[in-house]
Amino acid sequence: MPDILHRVGIKSSTKDAYKALTTIDGLAGWWTSTTKGDSSKVGGQIHFQFGDRGFFDTKVLELVPNERVLWQVVDGPAEWIGTKIGFELKQEGDQATVLFKHQGWKEPVEFMHHCSTKWAVFLMSLKSFVETGKGTPFPNDVRITINWD
Amino acid sequence: MPDILHRVGIKSSTKDAYKALTTIDGLAGWWTSTTKGDSSKVGGQIHFQFGDRGFFDTKVLELVPNERVLWQVVDGPAEWIGTKIGFELKQEGDQATVLFKHQGWKEPVEFMHHCSTKWAVFLMSLKSFVETGKGTPFPNDVRITINWD
Repeated sequence: MPDILHRVGIKSSTKDAYKALTTIDGLAGWWTSTTKGDSSKVGGQIHFQFGDRGFFDTKVLELVPNERVLWQVVDGPAEWIGTKIGFELKQEGDQATVLFKHQGWKEPVEFMHHCSTKWAVFLMSLKSFVETGKGTPFPNDVRITINWD
Repeated sequence: MPDILHRVGIKSSTKDAYKALTTIDGLAGWWTSTTKGDSSKVGGQIHFQFGDRGFFDTKVLELVPNERVLWQVVDGPAEWIGTKIGFELKQEGDQATVLFKHQGWKEPVEFMHHCSTKWAVFLMSLKSFVETGKGTPFPNDVRITINWD
């Protein structure tokens, strides 16, 4: 099954990057400003709302402090349900390197192409958020098409 | 074998998008300002130089005006050699939709994660270049890590 893969390098500690991936304030700082739920414990559920465009609900599967975050999508677009979203962190000098994988897509549909590019944009928002305190979460996200997204 | 997939929507005609993918001035406007070769005919070779960081040489495999461009990498990083890079274009109202695929990677290595994110950044540069006449090709490319790239 095809996966979406990405890698960004953040000028930070893995501790700060991990915080941005495991706290509601952190997630709201780079993905969508309307983030709710319990992101800091295994089994917790997180609700990511993108206005009237849609939402994703994830369940936290794994948390290894400053190293690894893994979620499973439990509700949202049909193509996303059951997929897993993982972030691996490692310290390389002044850089927290983030290896991202969104795995379990059934088919490489056009929507998967879209989500791949959109993930890159949001991971650049994560980088900016951790480095400067300011990201571009929804509804201020960088648009990759001319309409809604 | 895993692929890198992306999708962007450009406020333009597919004709203008195709031109940015098949002329040296076009390619130099969004990928690397040091682009040379013969990009406008099947069998032509294109050299993309990124300063002392490296280069990619591609051979044009297919050209369907305003619809499709396909290259094969013939020289550059070992992981890239033999891989194929394709752009499918379709007009959707005011938008030229670009479906991108970099296929034939042998393994989902860390460098592939990096290239996936970097492709997204360059495709956003393509979008900007076609829409406004100004992209961010190397050496003015958006950096996704804290060092060389």
